Amino acid sequence: MAPALRRRTSFGKSKRLWRLSLMSLVESALAGDRLSLTRLLTQVENDTPEGRQALAALFPHTGRAHLIGVTGAPGTGKSSLVNRLALHYRTQGKRVAVVAVDPSSPFTGGAVLGDRVRMRDLAGDPGVFIRSMASRGSLGGLAQATAGLVQVFDAVGFEVIMVETVGAGQSEVDIARLAHTTLVVEAPGLGDDIQAIKAGILEIADILAVNKADRPGVENTLKALKSALELAHPVRHVFRHHGKMETVEAPDAPVYNSWIPPIQKTVATTGEGIPELAAEIARHVEHLRQSGDWAARERSRLRSELDALLREALFARFREQVKETRYEEALERVFRRSLAPGEAVRILLDGC
Amino acid sequence: MAPALRRRTSFGKSKRLWRLSLMSLVESALAGDRLSLTRLLTQVENDTPEGRQALAALFPHTGRAHLIGVTGAPGTGKSSLVNRLALHYRTQGKRVAVVAVDPSSPFTGGAVLGDRVRMRDLAGDPGVFIRSMASRGSLGGLAQATAGLVQVFDAVGFEVIMVETVGAGQSEVDIARLAHTTLVVEAPGLGDDIQAIKAGILEIADILAVNKADRPGVENTLKALKSALELAHPVRHVFRHHGKMETVEAPDAPVYNSWIPPIQKTVATTGEGIPELAAEIARHVEHLRQSGDWAARERSRLRSELDALLREALFARFREQVKETRYEEALERVFRRSLAPGEAVRILLDGC
Repeated sequence: MAPALRRRTSFGKSKRLWRLSLMSLVESALAGDRLSLTRLLTQVENDTPEGRQALAALFPHTGRAHLIGVTGAPGTGKSSLVNRLALHYRTQGKRVAVVAVDPSSPFTGGAVLGDRVRMRDLAGDPGVFIRSMASRGSLGGLAQATAGLVQVFDAVGFEVIMVETVGAGQSEVDIARLAHTTLVVEAPGLGDDIQAIKAGILEIADILAVNKADRPGVENTLKALKSALELAHPVRHVFRHHGKMETVEAPDAPVYNSWIPPIQKTVATTGEGIPELAAEIARHVEHLRQSGDWAARERSRLRSELDALLREALFARFREQVKETRYEEALERVFRRSLAPGEAVRILLDGC
Repeated sequence: MAPALRRRTSFGKSKRLWRLSLMSLVESALAGDRLSLTRLLTQVENDTPEGRQALAALFPHTGRAHLIGVTGAPGTGKSSLVNRLALHYRTQGKRVAVVAVDPSSPFTGGAVLGDRVRMRDLAGDPGVFIRSMASRGSLGGLAQATAGLVQVFDAVGFEVIMVETVGAGQSEVDIARLAHTTLVVEAPGLGDDIQAIKAGILEIADILAVNKADRPGVENTLKALKSALELAHPVRHVFRHHGKMETVEAPDAPVYNSWIPPIQKTVATTGEGIPELAAEIARHVEHLRQSGDWAARERSRLRSELDALLREALFARFREQVKETRYEEALERVFRRSLAPGEAVRILLDGC
């Protein structure tokens, strides 16, 4: 009994110590300590037990930041635009965090663009924190990890949090769920394939930025975007035809209301159009507050977060309850095609 | 009692009829009827009860097709390359299915590129079936729906199934899980942003196609890809240094072995390089068979599929067991920041 007892005692002790150090880490991060913040972010990104504990401790401090999702096709100059916006918010004295989701290695977890590369114009400013993260290999992992980082930044007092992703499709939907304001970045002359993406992400756009607006073809891009917007937001256009400002809720869709996504020309390299873009973003915040959409988006975001955590917890509990051999046997039968996956689920869930 | 009884009887009857018609649909699809196949695909894509039943009935017939994931940045000419490959396989007498995952509206579900647009060169050929699908709004929904369509095509006897996605990041990882062979398409001169994507998807590439190889800058692209490949596959390069052909399994990673992703130049518009690309794909199949990776990938794919279904089933059962009011109360407390999401999960799971 002695060794087991000793082991238990020392476990209890280290757990207590660990809790103490986690709480002091959380406290110094809340007090503005950058190194503690960095450590917390790493724990949260890696989804460690410490990270989860920290999220729980930080949660009561969240709900104040303005979350801006920035998305668009490669080559539109999103990163430069995000840097420019960050600089702009700094002149207003706002603390800004950027979560840059790099489309980098799903398997090694290494980010392609390091934090330092992006920091050039913002280096040394304690009111700015830029975090690059790699996309995660697991389904939903990326969205969950991003949500975690955003929570940490929100809790420690960053007023504006920009989440930037490269890519098309699923990740944009996840951003739309996470953000109060979704900014879609376009640029002239990116070819035909880009058109297809545009149509897809226009529906989640609250604001459109046409970056690299000093390039030829910008008027064509603007024209194309305007007509695509009319297709993407038919409900809004019905409103314009009738001149009404009603809010109609589609059952499974985001709340459609009188907000018509504005299109703003920018040149991120020179800073042209940035104040105007920031003004549109501020106007959107105002709209969200007045229409009640701020709370609605907040609630829907927390609902998906809760559901994602529930799914994970249910699955983890299930894997604890079901004997490994029973699970592997079922998988083997599926592999041999003698059992359909749906049937395997029914058998495994039975009596569990 | 009479009305209830009548209702029950008529329900039983319609259920029997429905089963009959579903089974005849499955049977005619298996016999090669195109209309039945189209109907089944729609049921499966929409994840209806009929679709799930059909998948279960079709499952024993699966496991024969070669699944090829085709991915890459916008502007690389993926769709044209897929069409060319399909034409090539047709000359070999193979039946080819294409699942084109469009980055289109997550909210309306409408695909941007219709089936007909892509069919030009393949129209009227009964050995080809091209299905465009919209990305799904739900996390994991896209991967699951795609897996379902692939299963149907596999069951009814398509020997080659190509799954094409536009975009970067998460969706590529899902493809890598689904496919036996992952083909990554690149093209010269797509700008700096694309470089970041390349590094990310190179790790999942079994074969690289440099399309639009008649464009200037192709040699630079090839050079960049070659050095990026050396970074992306360090394990493989260790093997080359030591001159060994061992297979080492990383615990949570795909099996690393002696396969070094070849790079093939193509011009999809003229068909140049297509037979060579198909030969590399065939060589990869041969490698998968000989190394045992075919079965390993198959098993890992079925495992993620089973797990995804388990997660859904567990969550559905949970939502049935937990009172709606209890769930909404917990969400409300989370919304008011008086309860962290993790705590809410613990409370909701307690006694359930």
